[in-house]
Amino acid sequence: MAIRVTVWNENRHEQTSKEVREVYPAGIHGCIAEFLRAEGMDAGTATLDEPEHGLTDEVLDKTDVLIWWGHVAHQEVSDQVVEKVHKRVLDDMGLIVLHSGHFSKIFRKLMGTTCDLKWREIGEKERLWVVEPGHQIVDGIGEYIELPQTEMYGERFDIPAPDTLVFISWFAGGEVFRSGCCYNRGKGKVFYFRPGHETYPIFYRKDIQRVISNAVRWAAPTCGPSPAFGHVPEPLETIS
Amino acid sequence: MAIRVTVWNENRHEQTSKEVREVYPAGIHGCIAEFLRAEGMDAGTATLDEPEHGLTDEVLDKTDVLIWWGHVAHQEVSDQVVEKVHKRVLDDMGLIVLHSGHFSKIFRKLMGTTCDLKWREIGEKERLWVVEPGHQIVDGIGEYIELPQTEMYGERFDIPAPDTLVFISWFAGGEVFRSGCCYNRGKGKVFYFRPGHETYPIFYRKDIQRVISNAVRWAAPTCGPSPAFGHVPEPLETIS
Amino acid sequence: MAIRVTVWNENRHEQTSKEVREVYPAGIHGCIAEFLRAEGMDAGTATLDEPEHGLTDEVLDKTDVLIWWGHVAHQEVSDQVVEKVHKRVLDDMGLIVLHSGHFSKIFRKLMGTTCDLKWREIGEKERLWVVEPGHQIVDGIGEYIELPQTEMYGERFDIPAPDTLVFISWFAGGEVFRSGCCYNRGKGKVFYFRPGHETYPIFYRKDIQRVISNAVRWAAPTCGPSPAFGHVPEPLETIS
Amino acid sequence: MAIRVTVWNENRHEQTSKEVREVYPAGIHGCIAEFLRAEGMDAGTATLDEPEHGLTDEVLDKTDVLIWWGHVAHQEVSDQVVEKVHKRVLDDMGLIVLHSGHFSKIFRKLMGTTCDLKWREIGEKERLWVVEPGHQIVDGIGEYIELPQTEMYGERFDIPAPDTLVFISWFAGGEVFRSGCCYNRGKGKVFYFRPGHETYPIFYRKDIQRVISNAVRWAAPTCGPSPAFGHVPEPLETIS
Repeated sequence: MAIRVTVWNENRHEQTSKEVREVYPAGIHGCIAEFLRAEGMDAGTATLDEPEHGLTDEVLDKTDVLIWWGHVAHQEVSDQVVEKVHKRVLDDMGLIVLHSGHFSKIFRKLMGTTCDLKWREIGEKERLWVVEPGHQIVDGIGEYIELPQTEMYGERFDIPAPDTLVFISWFAGGEVFRSGCCYNRGKGKVFYFRPGHETYPIFYRKDIQRVISNAVRWAAPTCGPSPAFGHVPEPLETIS
Repeated sequence: MAIRVTVWNENRHEQTSKEVREVYPAGIHGCIAEFLRAEGMDAGTATLDEPEHGLTDEVLDKTDVLIWWGHVAHQEVSDQVVEKVHKRVLDDMGLIVLHSGHFSKIFRKLMGTTCDLKWREIGEKERLWVVEPGHQIVDGIGEYIELPQTEMYGERFDIPAPDTLVFISWFAGGEVFRSGCCYNRGKGKVFYFRPGHETYPIFYRKDIQRVISNAVRWAAPTCGPSPAFGHVPEPLETIS
Repeated sequence: MAIRVTVWNENRHEQTSKEVREVYPAGIHGCIAEFLRAEGMDAGTATLDEPEHGLTDEVLDKTDVLIWWGHVAHQEVSDQVVEKVHKRVLDDMGLIVLHSGHFSKIFRKLMGTTCDLKWREIGEKERLWVVEPGHQIVDGIGEYIELPQTEMYGERFDIPAPDTLVFISWFAGGEVFRSGCCYNRGKGKVFYFRPGHETYPIFYRKDIQRVISNAVRWAAPTCGPSPAFGHVPEPLETIS
Repeated sequence: MAIRVTVWNENRHEQTSKEVREVYPAGIHGCIAEFLRAEGMDAGTATLDEPEHGLTDEVLDKTDVLIWWGHVAHQEVSDQVVEKVHKRVLDDMGLIVLHSGHFSKIFRKLMGTTCDLKWREIGEKERLWVVEPGHQIVDGIGEYIELPQTEMYGERFDIPAPDTLVFISWFAGGEVFRSGCCYNRGKGKVFYFRPGHETYPIFYRKDIQRVISNAVRWAAPTCGPSPAFGHVPEPLETIS
C-alpha cells in the first residue's frame, strides 16, 4: 500500500515574493508532493492559511509521514495544531523537518531544546558528507552531496545528540553542521534534513529528492506494540 | 569550591499526611539537602508554595545543580518558572529528576515526549542493576541496589533513548524499567533516577544517597564554550 | 527480490545429543531456515564441520544476512573465516547473532569487548519487554514476549551500549538483560537477540520467528555509498 | 591523588628524522608528559623499542590513563601487549588515542571496525567545532579550535558512532571529520582526538594541551562495580 504523505508548507514566501513563485510556481509543497507521487507515494499538501492549517484530524489520521517546511511564520502556527501533531508523532506518524523548519514549534517541542544555530546567506557552497553509509536514508547516494549555492547553517546546533547522525555538512565559509539527524520519539521517527531554501532550487535536485523519499520510507510507521500506560494494579507474577 | 545545589520539593504530602511527616519530618527536600551537605555541598531547598516556588532568578543564578521531586501537584507549577528552569538547564545547570518527577512539566519539556509509564503500589521488591559500571554515577556502588519495598514503574517508559543508560530495574511483579538515564541537553546535564517515594524511606539509604551525590558531581557545570547563535554575516574564510 | 539468508549453526549438540536431535531433528539451522523460507526469503544453511565451515567466498558473496548460532565450539571456528565474515559485515552484510552466539569470535571481534555475562540454567521464566515500540524489529509483537522456560543471561553484559536497545529481559530469578541490541558497524547492521537454546524449543515460537524475520529485513543491505579510503592527494577545493 | 598517566609513543620518526627531532627534541611522548606534569599529573612515558614496548604489567598496573601515539610501526606492536592493554582498558584504564593512532592495533581492536579514513598532507587549515559544549573535555575551550596547518583526515571514518561526539572538524580542502569521539568500553573510557602530527607543532598549543588534560581527567577510572561474570547457579529470588 502506498505510503500516505502530507507535505506541509507555511506557503508565505510563495505569496509575497515573485522570485519565490518563479522558482516554485506550485509552492515548495507542490514541488515536494510531485516528486513523492512519482515515487509511488500517496502525497497530499497542507498549508498555514487553510483552516486548522490544513491539518485536521481527518488529514492527520490518514497521514503516515508528515513533511514540514516553515520559515517566517512559525509563531502563527496554533498551539492546538502543534499539540495534535506532537501526539500523532508519538503515536507513530513519521515527521521530516526540512531546513528552516528547525525553528518550528513542533520540532522544538519534540527536541526539548532551542534548536538554535548560526546562519549566513551569501550563496556559498555546501557539501553534505555521508557518515553512516549503511543507513536506509542514503540508499542511492554517493559519498557526498554538493550544493553549489546554499544558505549556511553552522554549529553549535542546539539539539539533542541524534540517535543516528547520517550527514555532516561542510561550508565554504568555514563552518560545519549536523545536517541529517534521525530520532526515535515515542513510536514515531523524526528526520531533520538541512538542505532547502525558498529561492535556491534545491528541492528539484534528484539527490535531495532521493534522500527525502528514502526518509519517508524510513519514517513510515511499523506495527509495533501500542504501550499501555498508567495503573496496573495486578502484578504479572505472584509475589510471595 | 562547593557545588551549589537547590533541592526542590513539591512538599505537599508532607503537609497533608501524618505518615509522610513521620518518615520525612524535615520534608523530602530537607532529607536530601542534609546528606548533600554532609558530602561538602552547598545545598539549599525550595518548595512549591514559596513565592515563585522558591526558584527566583537569584536562586537559580546561584544553582549549579537542581534536584526535582514532585508528585501530586505538577500542574500547579507555573509555566513561567518552568520556562526559566528550562533555560537555565540549557545554559548549563544540572538537573536531577527523582521518581515521580518523571511527570513534572520540566522533565517532559526537556524530553519532548510524554514520559508516561506503568505503575503499581504494592510494596514489591526492586533491584537496580548497573549496566554501565565505568560511569561516574555508580562510583562506590555494587553490582546492584536492592530495595525491599518500592512502588513499581514499568516499561514502556516513553522517553528518548538515554544518551547513557546506567541502571535497569527488575521488579518482583514481572516488569523492568530504565531507572538511571543520563541526557545532555543544551550545555546542561540531566539525570533521571527512579527510586524514591513519599513513605518508603528510600532517601535515607546510603547507596541511594551515594548515587544522588555522584549524580550532582556529574551534572555540575563545566566551563565549555557558550555558543553564539544567529546571524553571522561574515564567513570565517574568504570565498572565491 | 528475495533476501538471501545464510543460517550458520555450529551443529554439534545435534550430533552428540539425542535430546537435542529430538527437539531439532533438522538442526537449529534447519528450523530457522525453514521459517525464513515460509516468509519468502531465500534461506540456506552452513555448519562448522563443512569445508570452510560452509562459509566459502561464493556463499558469503551471495549472502545478504548471516544468522549465527554457536555454543560449545566457538574456538573451533577458524580465524580466517572470522576475518572474512568480519570484512563482509563491514562491507554491508547483515549479521544476526542468537543466544550463546554472544561468545562467538565474530561477535566479540565486532564489539571489541569480552561480551561476557552471567548465566544460569534452571528453566526459569523470561519476559522480554519492548522498550522501542516504533522499531521495525518489533513489528507485529506485543508489549512483551514471555518464555516459560529459558536459560538466564544476566547483566552486566559486557558490550558497547547498543546504537538502539529494543528489548530488555526480566528473569524470574532476579536478573535483567539487554536482550535485543542493534548496532551499525561499517556499512553492516548487527542484531544480537538473546532467546534461543538447544533444548527449549524457542525457535519454533511464532513470536520469536517474527522478531528474527523482522531483523533479517532490518539488517538487509541498502545501496549506500561505498566509502573511498586512503590518500586523496588533491583537495576538493582550491586552497589559497 | 595525582592521576597516573603513561604516554606511549612509537618514537620512530624522532629517531629517523632530524626535522621531527627539531620539533620534538624530547619526543612527542616527552612533550605530552611534560605538559601533563605541569597540570599536576603523574606522567611517565613508554616507547615501542623498550622491552615489552615499555608496557610491562608493572607499568600498566600503575596506569590510570594511557595515551597512545603511533604512525609508521603499528604492525610492530606485539599482539600480547595489545591483549594486555585491551584487558586493562576493559578493566577500567582510560585510553586516549591521538591522530594517526586511529590505525593502531589497540584502537581497531576496541572499535571492532577498520578505523580507516581519507588523508592528505598539504598543510591545510583545520577548524575543530565543539558540538557538545557542556562536555568536560571542552572545559576552557572556545567555540572552535583553529589549526593553521594540519594533515587532513576526512570522512567516511569507519568507526562505530561515538557514544558522545564532541568535535567535528572542517578542512580547507573540503572535507569534514568526527575528530573528538568518546566511547565507553567495558569499565574503561576511550577518547579519540584527531589533532597531532610529527612535524606540525600541534602538541605545544595550549588549547590542544587543554583538551588532552581534560580528556585524561574524564577518562580516569572511577570505583564502580567490578561485574561478576559466568555461572551463577543460585537465583537471587526463590522461584516457585
